[in-house]
Amino acid sequence: MRVAVLGTGIVGRTLGSALLSNGHEVRIGSRTAGNPAAVEWAEQIGGPASEGTFADAAGFGEIVINATAGSGSLEALQMAGYEQLAGKVLIDVANPLDTSRGMPPTLTVCNDDSLGEQIQRALPDVRVVKTLNSVTAAVMVDPSLVQGAHTMFVAGDDATAKEQTIELLQELGWPAGSIIDLGDITAARGMEMYMALWLRLWGAAGTAVLNIEVRSAGTPAG
Amino acid sequence: MRVAVLGTGIVGRTLGSALLSNGHEVRIGSRTAGNPAAVEWAEQIGGPASEGTFADAAGFGEIVINATAGSGSLEALQMAGYEQLAGKVLIDVANPLDTSRGMPPTLTVCNDDSLGEQIQRALPDVRVVKTLNSVTAAVMVDPSLVQGAHTMFVAGDDATAKEQTIELLQELGWPAGSIIDLGDITAARGMEMYMALWLRLWGAAGTAVLNIEVRSAGTPAG
Repeated sequence: MRVAVLGTGIVGRTLGSALLSNGHEVRIGSRTAGNPAAVEWAEQIGGPASEGTFADAAGFGEIVINATAGSGSLEALQMAGYEQLAGKVLIDVANPLDTSRGMPPTLTVCNDDSLGEQIQRALPDVRVVKTLNSVTAAVMVDPSLVQGAHTMFVAGDDATAKEQTIELLQELGWPAGSIIDLGDITAARGMEMYMALWLRLWGAAGTAVLNIEVRSAGTPAG
Repeated sequence: MRVAVLGTGIVGRTLGSALLSNGHEVRIGSRTAGNPAAVEWAEQIGGPASEGTFADAAGFGEIVINATAGSGSLEALQMAGYEQLAGKVLIDVANPLDTSRGMPPTLTVCNDDSLGEQIQRALPDVRVVKTLNSVTAAVMVDPSLVQGAHTMFVAGDDATAKEQTIELLQELGWPAGSIIDLGDITAARGMEMYMALWLRLWGAAGTAVLNIEVRSAGTPAG
């Protein structure tokens, strides 16, 4: 499948490389074509890896992944071109972190709204699925880095889009039983607000290679 | 030990009963003395169980637990009397849920502040420890209801107060190894913002008897 990855930071490049390993063609997009990190990434891999502008990538991808910094995601999607994104599955892995006011970062949107919802409202013809924002890039593509069973969330309004996303997650190594569907895109609020806890867990654990396992009365220990 | 529990709802009564079972004397406090739920609770148990106003309870307790609705906690603590609380450990288990705008509830404070911090600022002479807000009342006092290992958080500015709180948590059945100290009281932001995720987990699991286990690169599966 042709996958567009918007964002050439560590998350975008890590996801792009993992998708290539799974046999997909990947174009990563940036604000400008020829972004040095993107060029280096594409040249090292060659063949099915390419880079370009957000619009170049969006036009290329059958599926689009938003791996831009959350504070710039809406602008990046506008640059990608709404008409090019219409009808596609947009997997939103971004967190709306505001680092401008010091550390730890706060969120640019939360409580009664979320980045996932903002994106869905801005692009009503796009099928937005929120996922993967709850773990660091390395864990996104290799859940086995965290010992034992642990959970990945998905949320979105379109059931088929969520199914396609869950297939991609399984390709990345997430067992079907580890994936919890939290419902419609408003669940992105909780998934993004979890960042405030995640940042403190990182501090307490001394590593960002961490995740949570959800357990309930009926969950056998995994 | 004499423990004051502010709040006579399900959380307050559940915690009160569990503390009594562990040999403590408990007085639960309400806006007015003679609150029917509190009177019934105290009469059923007798002896070391009593009820009264917030001020009656605060004067009685060597340790004070805030189990009021988060939206009313600051007022309840004012009614309890700052001078009666000074120097004491205040265990804050409340969530600042705003149910006035429909379901799911939003938070009355979040992102760059938290209820835990508001309480600590309002009562600078009190040693506030945030804990237990991340689970439903039944799990607070019986973690074994959730299968397998799972995590409890503590946060607060006073190390000794956190140690005392951790001792109480262990009495309630939380293994020492399940308790993560997230640092100072600003970590209450993440602990309270997690509610937005928790509410969706409740929906997905079909039960509020749930919790999360934090795992990292170095965590053996538990």
